Amino acid sequence: MINITFPDGVVRQYEQGITAMDIAKSISEGLARKVLAAKVNGQVIDASRPITQDGTIQLLTWTDADGKATMWHSSAHLMAEALESLYPGVKFGYGPPLENGGFYYDVDLDGRQISEEELRRLEVKMQELAKQNNPYIRREVPKAEAIRYFTEKNDPYKLEIIDRLEDGNISFYTQGGFTDLCRGPHIPSTGFIKAVKLTNIAGAYWLGNEKNKMLTRIYGVTFPSQKELDEHLALIEEAKKRDHRKLGKELDLFAFSEKVGLGLPLWLPKGAMLRERLQNFLQKAQIESGYLPVITPHIGNKALYVTSGHYEKYGKDSFQAIHTPEEGEEFMLKPMNCPHHCEIYKTSPRSYKDLPIRFAEFGTVYRYEQHGELHGLTRVRGFTQDDAHLFCRPDQVKEEFIKVIDLVLYVFGSLGFENYTAQISLRDKENRSKYIGSEENWNLAEQAIIESAAEKGLNTVVEYGEAAFYGPKLDFMVKDALGRKWQLGTIQVDYNLPERFELEYVGADNKPHRPVMIHRAPFGSMERFIAVLIEHCAGKFPLWLTPTQVKLLPISDKFVPYAEKVAALLKKVEIRAEIDDRGEKIGKKIREAELAKIPYMLVIGEKEEAEEKVAVRRQAKGDLGTMSVEAFTKLVQDEVISRKPFE
Amino acid sequence: MINITFPDGVVRQYEQGITAMDIAKSISEGLARKVLAAKVNGQVIDASRPITQDGTIQLLTWTDADGKATMWHSSAHLMAEALESLYPGVKFGYGPPLENGGFYYDVDLDGRQISEEELRRLEVKMQELAKQNNPYIRREVPKAEAIRYFTEKNDPYKLEIIDRLEDGNISFYTQGGFTDLCRGPHIPSTGFIKAVKLTNIAGAYWLGNEKNKMLTRIYGVTFPSQKELDEHLALIEEAKKRDHRKLGKELDLFAFSEKVGLGLPLWLPKGAMLRERLQNFLQKAQIESGYLPVITPHIGNKALYVTSGHYEKYGKDSFQAIHTPEEGEEFMLKPMNCPHHCEIYKTSPRSYKDLPIRFAEFGTVYRYEQHGELHGLTRVRGFTQDDAHLFCRPDQVKEEFIKVIDLVLYVFGSLGFENYTAQISLRDKENRSKYIGSEENWNLAEQAIIESAAEKGLNTVVEYGEAAFYGPKLDFMVKDALGRKWQLGTIQVDYNLPERFELEYVGADNKPHRPVMIHRAPFGSMERFIAVLIEHCAGKFPLWLTPTQVKLLPISDKFVPYAEKVAALLKKVEIRAEIDDRGEKIGKKIREAELAKIPYMLVIGEKEEAEEKVAVRRQAKGDLGTMSVEAFTKLVQDEVISRKPFE
Repeated sequence: MINITFPDGVVRQYEQGITAMDIAKSISEGLARKVLAAKVNGQVIDASRPITQDGTIQLLTWTDADGKATMWHSSAHLMAEALESLYPGVKFGYGPPLENGGFYYDVDLDGRQISEEELRRLEVKMQELAKQNNPYIRREVPKAEAIRYFTEKNDPYKLEIIDRLEDGNISFYTQGGFTDLCRGPHIPSTGFIKAVKLTNIAGAYWLGNEKNKMLTRIYGVTFPSQKELDEHLALIEEAKKRDHRKLGKELDLFAFSEKVGLGLPLWLPKGAMLRERLQNFLQKAQIESGYLPVITPHIGNKALYVTSGHYEKYGKDSFQAIHTPEEGEEFMLKPMNCPHHCEIYKTSPRSYKDLPIRFAEFGTVYRYEQHGELHGLTRVRGFTQDDAHLFCRPDQVKEEFIKVIDLVLYVFGSLGFENYTAQISLRDKENRSKYIGSEENWNLAEQAIIESAAEKGLNTVVEYGEAAFYGPKLDFMVKDALGRKWQLGTIQVDYNLPERFELEYVGADNKPHRPVMIHRAPFGSMERFIAVLIEHCAGKFPLWLTPTQVKLLPISDKFVPYAEKVAALLKKVEIRAEIDDRGEKIGKKIREAELAKIPYMLVIGEKEEAEEKVAVRRQAKGDLGTMSVEAFTKLVQDEVISRKPFE
Repeated sequence: MINITFPDGVVRQYEQGITAMDIAKSISEGLARKVLAAKVNGQVIDASRPITQDGTIQLLTWTDADGKATMWHSSAHLMAEALESLYPGVKFGYGPPLENGGFYYDVDLDGRQISEEELRRLEVKMQELAKQNNPYIRREVPKAEAIRYFTEKNDPYKLEIIDRLEDGNISFYTQGGFTDLCRGPHIPSTGFIKAVKLTNIAGAYWLGNEKNKMLTRIYGVTFPSQKELDEHLALIEEAKKRDHRKLGKELDLFAFSEKVGLGLPLWLPKGAMLRERLQNFLQKAQIESGYLPVITPHIGNKALYVTSGHYEKYGKDSFQAIHTPEEGEEFMLKPMNCPHHCEIYKTSPRSYKDLPIRFAEFGTVYRYEQHGELHGLTRVRGFTQDDAHLFCRPDQVKEEFIKVIDLVLYVFGSLGFENYTAQISLRDKENRSKYIGSEENWNLAEQAIIESAAEKGLNTVVEYGEAAFYGPKLDFMVKDALGRKWQLGTIQVDYNLPERFELEYVGADNKPHRPVMIHRAPFGSMERFIAVLIEHCAGKFPLWLTPTQVKLLPISDKFVPYAEKVAALLKKVEIRAEIDDRGEKIGKKIREAELAKIPYMLVIGEKEEAEEKVAVRRQAKGDLGTMSVEAFTKLVQDEVISRKPFE
């Protein structure tokens, strides 16, 4: 008998050689129908593999990330089976699941192009094969046999892979009439796959090397029900509509120019104003929380980054040094603001009574990314961090942490992000030699983070071994309106930089001590945050933030003067209003303002002018009736003060 | 007889060979006593040299820059005479007047050091020789004779200079017993020099080449009266006290770190807040004037600067290119924001109805300067321009110019700069081929600038030939509290960049046209402007701008809670208040707040707490009496709104 420990800590005894599927059945038939694989002693295996030792078990279903990955990997095999039946002689490269969902298979179709129609036919074939509910059967094979099999099948790619494998470490998986070289794991049988969508075709060099042959990469995704596939496709459709690159263009927020450089955003007036409004909002909150603004240059002498350790770690793979024509100096574009802030800390002697000191800067940093990695505002080469560095005594870490959490939650709340969890990253429980800083300080800091999160009532996940070598941290994982997760608002404790920069303060004991440093950025980067915000609210920003709050729509030229009078009144109370004074029909003006997601439209004609009123329309909601300018002003101001999200 | 034209246009006839001194005497003996030299046909000559041809004349006195330079040059000869009498055998290098006032002479004292005491003795000797009122006598000498003279005198430096001169082009000047190789001109006689101050001694390599011998450079300055010397010395003393590098440190505004890099300022919290306040002030005024904020990166692809022409012109002498590790791209630190703004202009098609478009950015730029050129905040390697680029139709130049002048004058007025002139730089009247842009547009723009300045009632100087090749401009020359002139607030028309970037707008004729570009920056650079402002107001910033407006000084710990209550009330109405809660005596607290130039001090003791009042002190003025917090708030707010300079 062996002892099996379940995630809830319960230990049960089973016969040696029992499978995860059997264990599931022993619990309930309903559970067994859902089990896709199992995690045994931390390793994901087939639900049909015998378990021979004591250990922990987690039965994996569709709700587990590993369960999904297993099904998508099995779906790649299913697609391969379908391909082989439709295109005999097709050769196969790699066919893995994808981290962000779905799978692909790289195949050699001997130059043949796959049409959209053929892709649909392939889907149908997969569904047909799935319905056969063939089991995925694992078999360990000697290397010689594996070579023989794929030599007969004439598949040079699989032979190349086998060549690199050790004998005794090779397995095949077979479902229906298809056998693949694979280390697994797989789902019990093809019947678990109920809905199939092949999404995309692309070229991909064999092994990613452009000297090799280009294979055809076919992407797909599968689900355990048609309903889930439909929801997924609707989400993708919605995500496309909300793509910040598309909306950024439509709303005139930002642009790129090849001549300025890829990955270097140009903020257009509406985007710049929105970004400045966001900055001012946070700046104000920070000043109220005792932060001190500083401004530092965008370059630093190489010596600065040698001291900080950034040069050694990133120097080779980053933007290369800037030389001066005469003195032979070397400067680097700054990849981080912290070394500069450490130098500011050092401009004065500091006493324990001065701490905490909180230096804040909206600091633009530059980091090299390859062309292929760049993506809109989420992956750029230059971005502005809402950065701050808190220098405090070890006994102040908890209080500072709580204050930072308060600030981050205030920011999230003001922007309509209501769905988040906190991930706390602590040291590895076993191996503590890889961390710098004293045991005492680590314990203090880890305890401080755990307690702060608890006191703030955060929904928390603790990850051991995920701390940086220089300190523990807390990240907020925020879900957007489409349910996608974004890591925002990192708070990181740092024992390393104070050591490297030899930062000190004079303690109550009149002796020098090392301060603790906390890095934090509620937005992270202005660029990435605004991208997330655009996609979260589909370009319909909260009223307090939106570039144009009100569009005045005179019915004809005759009413432009009255519109100008109203606009001037609104501007006086800092309501951002624009007039559409083109000679277009009112219907067209309304349609365009709706598309531009302007929250309020004021239609102005004879009646409005005569009564000194405005006819108010709300974007996507329609007519709100006629009211005085004062009443409208109050409506807008109340919504601005409430900071409620745009609906 | 010859015709001599005076500056006021009057023409008089004189005998050929008459001297400027004779002409002065013919006007008045009083004038003659003041004449130091003369400008004849644009060339400065001795007042004693015969005039042989028709021409223009300007009699130069101490009020003319050329008059001063002549006297300082003659003073260098006087110092040489004194040196020779005190240190026989001394050898002489060059001894010129200095552009910023005074003179020096490089001398070889055979390794001998000059003490402070000896410097004073040298001054006395100079005054003694000056009183002899010896004339400066010019003599043209053949090269052979010049060589003979300095060979006998054993002066290798003068021989080296003569070696490079052409025979027939060599002159000596003699005063008293001292003769120097010199092309002149000089003042009539040593008696004009009434007051002498030798200011400084430094080492200087012969001909500036460090392979040559190091000579002793003795600096001095002279005046036509002791009173003027005293005023000059007092100004220097005052300038030292106001030095922005000294005050910047004392007031915790900015710092430098060698590790970050020379010439790269770090703005400390108080400085950063002051700078942000200045920016917000201008930003607000700009938005009210229809400017559109944009934000662009601090680097740009080399291609951008090849297009703009900056690379060709400055590439070699600037910060060198930043290479990427993979793609082989080259980026440059941006030396100017205009190329980026041109690219933003190009992101959309523009119509004549859209113009003018005014893009504004507080854009940080980086320009290489040698170490030796760096100076505090006035000469740095990275600085932030309050930059804007106006894209307009040729017929809009004048209206835009007037608006920019309004903005610049609003800025100057709000900061206590009341003494300025406008310099208008136009094309060379003769040679027009070196300018780009059409004759028609140049005429329009030049006329627009002249008319704008006239309509605004500016005190104007027109300089022909001073326009850039790409357009005319207007500069403001601002006098600070010490009478020093600063060039601020340039407005520059540009026909070049629109051409190079092929900028276009669709005209009313439905055809493409080139817009005109106007560059303008009221502050110029935030760094340099703040340096000028610090020195102008001696660190006593206007109340609306100053980092800490109010310091609360509780007499003892007991009154700290009441001080905190008052501080909270002040903060609520956005008055920047700090509490000095140290356990120091009130006298010390007041002294330190005075030194830190805090405008208002509130002394808080038993009586103030009991009556719920505050005892108000004004920096440098003393007690203003006791008043309620409301009354004090009103006092501060009124001064802030008035934007009046700190007194």
